[in-house]
Amino acid sequence: MATYDCLTFLTDYGLEDGFVAACHGVAARILPSIRLSDITHLVPPGDVRRGAAVLAQTIPYLPPAVHVAVVDPGVGTARRGVAIQAGDGILVGPDNGLLSWAIAALGGAQRACQLTNGEWWLHPVSPTFHGRDIFTPVAARLAAGADFAEAGTEIDVAELVALPAPTSRVRDGEAEGEVMSVDRFGNVQLSIAASDADQLGIGFGASLVVRCGRRQLTVPYLETFAAVAPGEIVAFTDSAGLISIAVNAGDAAQQLGLPPGAHVRLSATPVS
Amino acid sequence: MATYDCLTFLTDYGLEDGFVAACHGVAARILPSIRLSDITHLVPPGDVRRGAAVLAQTIPYLPPAVHVAVVDPGVGTARRGVAIQAGDGILVGPDNGLLSWAIAALGGAQRACQLTNGEWWLHPVSPTFHGRDIFTPVAARLAAGADFAEAGTEIDVAELVALPAPTSRVRDGEAEGEVMSVDRFGNVQLSIAASDADQLGIGFGASLVVRCGRRQLTVPYLETFAAVAPGEIVAFTDSAGLISIAVNAGDAAQQLGLPPGAHVRLSATPVS
Amino acid sequence: MATYDCLTFLTDYGLEDGFVAACHGVAARILPSIRLSDITHLVPPGDVRRGAAVLAQTIPYLPPAVHVAVVDPGVGTARRGVAIQAGDGILVGPDNGLLSWAIAALGGAQRACQLTNGEWWLHPVSPTFHGRDIFTPVAARLAAGADFAEAGTEIDVAELVALPAPTSRVRDGEAEGEVMSVDRFGNVQLSIAASDADQLGIGFGASLVVRCGRRQLTVPYLETFAAVAPGEIVAFTDSAGLISIAVNAGDAAQQLGLPPGAHVRLSATPVS
Repeated sequence: MATYDCLTFLTDYGLEDGFVAACHGVAARILPSIRLSDITHLVPPGDVRRGAAVLAQTIPYLPPAVHVAVVDPGVGTARRGVAIQAGDGILVGPDNGLLSWAIAALGGAQRACQLTNGEWWLHPVSPTFHGRDIFTPVAARLAAGADFAEAGTEIDVAELVALPAPTSRVRDGEAEGEVMSVDRFGNVQLSIAASDADQLGIGFGASLVVRCGRRQLTVPYLETFAAVAPGEIVAFTDSAGLISIAVNAGDAAQQLGLPPGAHVRLSATPVS
Repeated sequence: MATYDCLTFLTDYGLEDGFVAACHGVAARILPSIRLSDITHLVPPGDVRRGAAVLAQTIPYLPPAVHVAVVDPGVGTARRGVAIQAGDGILVGPDNGLLSWAIAALGGAQRACQLTNGEWWLHPVSPTFHGRDIFTPVAARLAAGADFAEAGTEIDVAELVALPAPTSRVRDGEAEGEVMSVDRFGNVQLSIAASDADQLGIGFGASLVVRCGRRQLTVPYLETFAAVAPGEIVAFTDSAGLISIAVNAGDAAQQLGLPPGAHVRLSATPVS
Repeated sequence: MATYDCLTFLTDYGLEDGFVAACHGVAARILPSIRLSDITHLVPPGDVRRGAAVLAQTIPYLPPAVHVAVVDPGVGTARRGVAIQAGDGILVGPDNGLLSWAIAALGGAQRACQLTNGEWWLHPVSPTFHGRDIFTPVAARLAAGADFAEAGTEIDVAELVALPAPTSRVRDGEAEGEVMSVDRFGNVQLSIAASDADQLGIGFGASLVVRCGRRQLTVPYLETFAAVAPGEIVAFTDSAGLISIAVNAGDAAQQLGLPPGAHVRLSATPVS
């Protein structure tokens, strides 16, 4: 088996407690040379969709690694723990859909197993902290070169829990989607790809009609938010290739009232 | 002397300023190969008890290391700076009780010294930033293999400042304790160990009566918060072996009004 | 060319998204052995002055490194990307003044170039994420030993954009300055150096008159905030050598209403 020199972590553990450090420490005790890299620990508590989105959008930029991801509102219940080979890495976490969009971003799962080999775990296993006691020690052992097949029972990759893909379709001259996420800057990322805008014949410089419920606004579609004056609204293609709506030097999500999950439709400005 | 390849940090410095990076940088300039690991920097400003609790609960999972801990409302006053050998590591910080619970968790202090060797410090020493100018350079030198005895004047470990242990006792069929901490999820950790519940004959599946002031609630004692429906209250044994009260997918501390320090009593449901 | 083994990062990307991890990953894919060190990612969005202040006050404590700094409200517009040799390091980021105070702290720029060599970038370049697609890969290549001159077109260091220095002058028995920043503890850092106080004959133990608009308060000037009782106001020389105003165990910025940028005058208490 390949050996990895990097472990990454994505969780909803926050940064004010010692949870992340305990996981880091467990990994370092198993494999002292391992490099530990944090994607984020500020996924809103239990928000599996948000965790899945951040993981999927970030993982293409990460080096070959074993990725530990834990947003796990069902910890300690019947949901399975899994390890999955995909792309040039391995993902380890709960089988609750959290990993599914990242797996798709990596081109699909090659192989998966349910974590049933308790010899690899830290005992006693806390029913509420599988990140420390199961997922991290399993990941560290896999990084150290342990045989993937020994982590547990092989399972069919088709049986892995997958989150429904975000709504996104083009029809009748409109692109429909939803708000995927809101970043630190208040930029509103839609589930509508730049390529969908292309399909509608919308290119940079065009005006875009954005509809959300009864509201409607017309905004310029430009290369970057900084292309409009501070305080003005703009649509642009963000760093994940998705259409986002921003207020330059402002907070679009707050100003426009567009929370994650909100349904949105885009179209070109009608020629009048 | 043993050499350590890891320095850990726990402070109340926050993450928005450059304080943590300055400490990291000072360590890296002294010992470029050292691995730097953050436990947390979000201890509430000056909250020595909270810092002590996080450190004590996390340190058993960390690799052998020199641990720098700084929650130091008395910085620049007469309180001593100390280095302490305990378990397989060394702790460095102010002698204000912050380190005391971690030392107990490691089985007690083997040896201690007051940091009086100014040759190891970064000059000029800022009276308000001993983390950067005293504790980190001392820790880095100790990690690099410098003689512990040269850090300063040996002191009797019995003279180290200790925080009073959290209230916790079992009598008259009740376990008494206090709220130790509230984590990111709003889970309320009590100073009452699972073994105290055992003593009262309370096992998983039982009902627990929780009293706080005049309030009283009856909650199931289960293996994990996810064993109850979202929104319901539950008591469980947390990842530190302490009894915690949670609202599944909710914030128990907020909902129940149980801040750190609140006095709590637990008992089995009376057989009627 | 020298090779660096450390990359540092200062941004306003926040910690809740995957932006920082994407930059880290890009660096690790180019130079797997590189050490990644975060100064802060919590610069308020777009606050170039605040980013410049944190960078300048922290950089003297960092090891030789390539420093990536990105607070870049003009990303994707005509502002240049630059690499600058200064002190024992290289700074990489937007030419919007963010780097200027750090350069001054390092003794001035030795050499600079505009980042025009697209072969070093990650393609396609996102117009809104130059941190990931331009600055980090350029920094990683420079750390790996690539020739500085190949990063782009050499430019005159005198042409680099510089932020105006913070107001600070001594005249008529008064030191004038502004609030530089407010740290996690609510301490109010002024742009007035301890040496300016010296010039006015103000030493530790003296009383200081602080004027801000129509308000005036008299506070003791002491070595550390812990020298006064909890809740009391004090002026002290902070860890950057600047005069700061604190409330011991309190939040001076909030209590005194002194936000960044506020104009402040200091003088010795008049002998009556």
